[in-house]
Amino acid sequence: MTLTLQQLNTAAPEEALRLLDGLYEHSPWIAEQALAQRPFVSLSALKHAMVTVLANAGVDAQLALIRAHPELAGKAMVSRSLTAESTHEQTRAGLTDCTPAEFDHIQHLNAQYNAKFGFPFILAVRGPRGTGLSKREIIATFERRLGNPSDFERNECLRNIHRIAEIRLNDKFGFEPRLGNAVWDWHEDLARHSDPGFAERGELTVTYLTDAHRACAADLVERMKACGFDEVKIDAVGNVVGVYGASPFPSPLPQAAGGVRTLLTGSHFDTVRNGGKYDGRLGIFVPMACVKRLHEAGRRLPFAIEVVGFSEEEGQRYKATFLGSGALTGHFNPAWLDQQDAEGVTMREAMQHAGLPATLSAINALQRDPSRYLGFVEVHIEQGPVLNEMDLPLGVVTSINASVRYQCEAIGMASHAGTTPMNRRRDAASAVAELALFAEQRAGADGDSVATIGMLQVPGGSINVVPGRCRFSLDLRAPSDAQRDALERDILAQLRAICERRGIGLSLEETMRASAAPSAPAWQLRWERAVAALGVPLHRMPSGAGHDAMKLHERMPQAMLFVRGLNSGISHNPLESTTSDDIELCVDAFSHLLDQLATEHR
Amino acid sequence: MTLTLQQLNTAAPEEALRLLDGLYEHSPWIAEQALAQRPFVSLSALKHAMVTVLANAGVDAQLALIRAHPELAGKAMVSRSLTAESTHEQTRAGLTDCTPAEFDHIQHLNAQYNAKFGFPFILAVRGPRGTGLSKREIIATFERRLGNPSDFERNECLRNIHRIAEIRLNDKFGFEPRLGNAVWDWHEDLARHSDPGFAERGELTVTYLTDAHRACAADLVERMKACGFDEVKIDAVGNVVGVYGASPFPSPLPQAAGGVRTLLTGSHFDTVRNGGKYDGRLGIFVPMACVKRLHEAGRRLPFAIEVVGFSEEEGQRYKATFLGSGALTGHFNPAWLDQQDAEGVTMREAMQHAGLPATLSAINALQRDPSRYLGFVEVHIEQGPVLNEMDLPLGVVTSINASVRYQCEAIGMASHAGTTPMNRRRDAASAVAELALFAEQRAGADGDSVATIGMLQVPGGSINVVPGRCRFSLDLRAPSDAQRDALERDILAQLRAICERRGIGLSLEETMRASAAPSAPAWQLRWERAVAALGVPLHRMPSGAGHDAMKLHERMPQAMLFVRGLNSGISHNPLESTTSDDIELCVDAFSHLLDQLATEHR
Repeated sequence: MTLTLQQLNTAAPEEALRLLDGLYEHSPWIAEQALAQRPFVSLSALKHAMVTVLANAGVDAQLALIRAHPELAGKAMVSRSLTAESTHEQTRAGLTDCTPAEFDHIQHLNAQYNAKFGFPFILAVRGPRGTGLSKREIIATFERRLGNPSDFERNECLRNIHRIAEIRLNDKFGFEPRLGNAVWDWHEDLARHSDPGFAERGELTVTYLTDAHRACAADLVERMKACGFDEVKIDAVGNVVGVYGASPFPSPLPQAAGGVRTLLTGSHFDTVRNGGKYDGRLGIFVPMACVKRLHEAGRRLPFAIEVVGFSEEEGQRYKATFLGSGALTGHFNPAWLDQQDAEGVTMREAMQHAGLPATLSAINALQRDPSRYLGFVEVHIEQGPVLNEMDLPLGVVTSINASVRYQCEAIGMASHAGTTPMNRRRDAASAVAELALFAEQRAGADGDSVATIGMLQVPGGSINVVPGRCRFSLDLRAPSDAQRDALERDILAQLRAICERRGIGLSLEETMRASAAPSAPAWQLRWERAVAALGVPLHRMPSGAGHDAMKLHERMPQAMLFVRGLNSGISHNPLESTTSDDIELCVDAFSHLLDQLATEHR
Repeated sequence: MTLTLQQLNTAAPEEALRLLDGLYEHSPWIAEQALAQRPFVSLSALKHAMVTVLANAGVDAQLALIRAHPELAGKAMVSRSLTAESTHEQTRAGLTDCTPAEFDHIQHLNAQYNAKFGFPFILAVRGPRGTGLSKREIIATFERRLGNPSDFERNECLRNIHRIAEIRLNDKFGFEPRLGNAVWDWHEDLARHSDPGFAERGELTVTYLTDAHRACAADLVERMKACGFDEVKIDAVGNVVGVYGASPFPSPLPQAAGGVRTLLTGSHFDTVRNGGKYDGRLGIFVPMACVKRLHEAGRRLPFAIEVVGFSEEEGQRYKATFLGSGALTGHFNPAWLDQQDAEGVTMREAMQHAGLPATLSAINALQRDPSRYLGFVEVHIEQGPVLNEMDLPLGVVTSINASVRYQCEAIGMASHAGTTPMNRRRDAASAVAELALFAEQRAGADGDSVATIGMLQVPGGSINVVPGRCRFSLDLRAPSDAQRDALERDILAQLRAICERRGIGLSLEETMRASAAPSAPAWQLRWERAVAALGVPLHRMPSGAGHDAMKLHERMPQAMLFVRGLNSGISHNPLESTTSDDIELCVDAFSHLLDQLATEHR
């Protein structure tokens, strides 16, 4: 018999504590303190209450909790090992049948880990889908986490402990993230298509209009149909477009020129090279799951839902970033058709090969009439560490940051490292070092600006030569154009002052500039209400990365919702990941936003 | 009729000023103020007095002097051009027969130069030997100096103005740096030998026991014999050893075990790849010129002079740095014989090919008995900017700096440049930036320590990725071991603190450590007396670079004298240069040191 939230909320304190027994290893105090916050509106609210208790308990209590977990070392048998989860959980994780060599390797990793960190390695072996990590995944994670700094790894252990507790809590409540699991599986399924040269290595790469790309589009078409979309098609730039029609009664929402208004949503299904499975695709699958839910319930809303799987956002095969969403906003650059890929295939040829018309008239016809649309919303994996570090599943985007990029070179005077006194140097790298620290401090002072010197090199540097040249890149972003401009102005002024003072020459080339796309307040508010309704703490944040919503922003109101990424939110990397529980919350939030819209327009 | 110093020192002020007319373009005030310091003990003292007047006159007066020189622009004819020197001087510089294309190019350079600096380009076209730069050299210098920072270039113009004045003064006094010119020519002559692959490009490269190297040794043997050395031979490691015997009366200096004591001197004749003509060789040729002077005068001293052209110091063909001088001090590493060069030729084979015995017994027999020697002195081009910038021809070395080198890597966490807030980054490059500024400040606080990050790279860095790794080198040097150790301790402690605070991992590999070789006080004092006797201001300085004297230091007292290098003292570069006037002063200083020794032991 499974527990209900009603039972927990109304039980006597001792009984409530007994109901939550065993969530945290030998640490009932976590549940006990959390229970003081009853009643909980959702399991998510309860989970977050426990996260907060532990976060506020201090490092000593956290370490005690980590150390309460059993050690992997010596005593373990080849068939048993690794974490605090039950034997049942380990069986599902496939760790019971280690070979002696694997067992020895794990023992060795464990010894190294303990020597470095002084606490046991904790891993939620049931993983992000709840069905268990493979032996290979577990060992790879162990190896990788050995390289973490100590305080970071302590927090990573705590995050895994929370994940273990989440799964145990789900079990107690008989809760299964049904749509979250489905969407998680859809990502896995779609990721079986990958471009040649990457597929063989198990790497995910899907670039514009390759065979893998067209196979993805075909899969999306079939999946949308199966979800209950009324119309599904592939448009002239390869976007997959599914429409779930509005309710015919009581009355469809009127649009300016008559007919039914539509909510536009979606994201991209192409990837970077050796990328992650969730970047873009989550923003297609989550609204598809909502439509599936509506369709299964036989519901329609007073507006249509148009989900677009954008064919191109990453600009990998062709330098045509945001091609898919840009086609809807009139930003398709005609010159792109003649652009060649690395093999000399023009985009026009690639389109023709894919059975697309490859004419400007067909592409221009894709432009959307804003009066037909309510607005654009987009769900995306965060691609950053914030939600992961804050133990929050969702974040509401306030703005897609404005950005500007430069490629720079500082030119000093190369000289003998032994014979050139410090006060007679023109060290190009020292000038850049000074800039780096200023940029770090200046962006940090804003709180939500970022400044990055990602490329840095003394070309042909020698150990005994004072750097005569230093090449570096500069990437500046902020939530508004004005804030970005002030950041840029201050950093470039400081750079010039540093170079002037040090007698360093400077070359600067601006390589990119993009305006901010602040969320439309009414739409951001809908996301905020949706998140709050789930019992999840509301966290507002800017988006440091660019998204398709930036393009739609130029034609209609837009707002985005972020989902937590695991592994510090790493992205453009195979380690990109999120849990089916977080995806379920995202589907729920999206459904809530749909319901709000339906209510507003009833 | 030429002027004498006696005339100048005793002339009435107005007459004295008339005698110095025309040294500085339309600026008699420089000579006038300098004359207040009469009497001058030497032409060098007069030159330096004028340098000091201009240095103290301030930037406005300096710019006025520079601008007093005629412009190159439009009005000039194809057959006339470029600087303030007389037509006579220009004729010698070969600038009178420019082709129209060359003339146009010079005009274009001149326009660029004026636009950048706002003053005319000044070049002492009679050059470091006084006989005139070639058209090609003049144009290349113009092109190169266009890249200088403005304040540096202003000072470079002033240095050229002083050089023009020096040549004019020499003409007035009928002074010719006879031995300086000879030694300058010897360098040119020896530089005609260069290794295959470099010789074809006009680059100087002489590595251990190549054909070019053996041709250099043979030239040195012949040159030493021509200078009057009594015995000249090539020893078992390819060193060229010349001995000029002691005077038989009144009585040779006794040595501990009887016989004649000897002053040891010399430097190396091998070069780095595409190196300069003076690095090492000056320290062989200057004492050879002194012996030539003694021999021409029929003089012998109460001690023998042993000049060694060391065959190997740079460690280019084989990793066997200081092989030549190390053979004299018992530091020949037997394993070197089996070391292979890039073509697989062992050192043993190379020695055999050169007709050397290639046996350890023969090499070990080269070790010198310190009791037979008075000490070791070495003359070397500075290889740094100090003397050039201070307008001083000579510098007395206080110590060859202790050094230590590391190859390092900072390991942070690569993350998305847009989505990772500043306070959640583990930016490996920012940590190195912080170290770079600390090291700069810490070494600068010592005054005579240096710290250099010469190699710096974010491997595989991207414009939109926070650096996860940063590789860098660290080169630390100071005049004493204790000062080097304190510098190293502070910098490494700070590096560790930075990494700890930023959560950055660190790997450090020490790749080199060498002890300081402080000058023997009595020998340093002899160099100081010699410099002072020439009327040249005394400047003491550490040597940041390593020298053969470091090796001899372990067996006998040593002290070094530095000669100013042109072009900011650039070294290990074809632009390495010095004037025949400075070389003459160095020969005079060395002769003075010999005379001091003779007097001490009379």
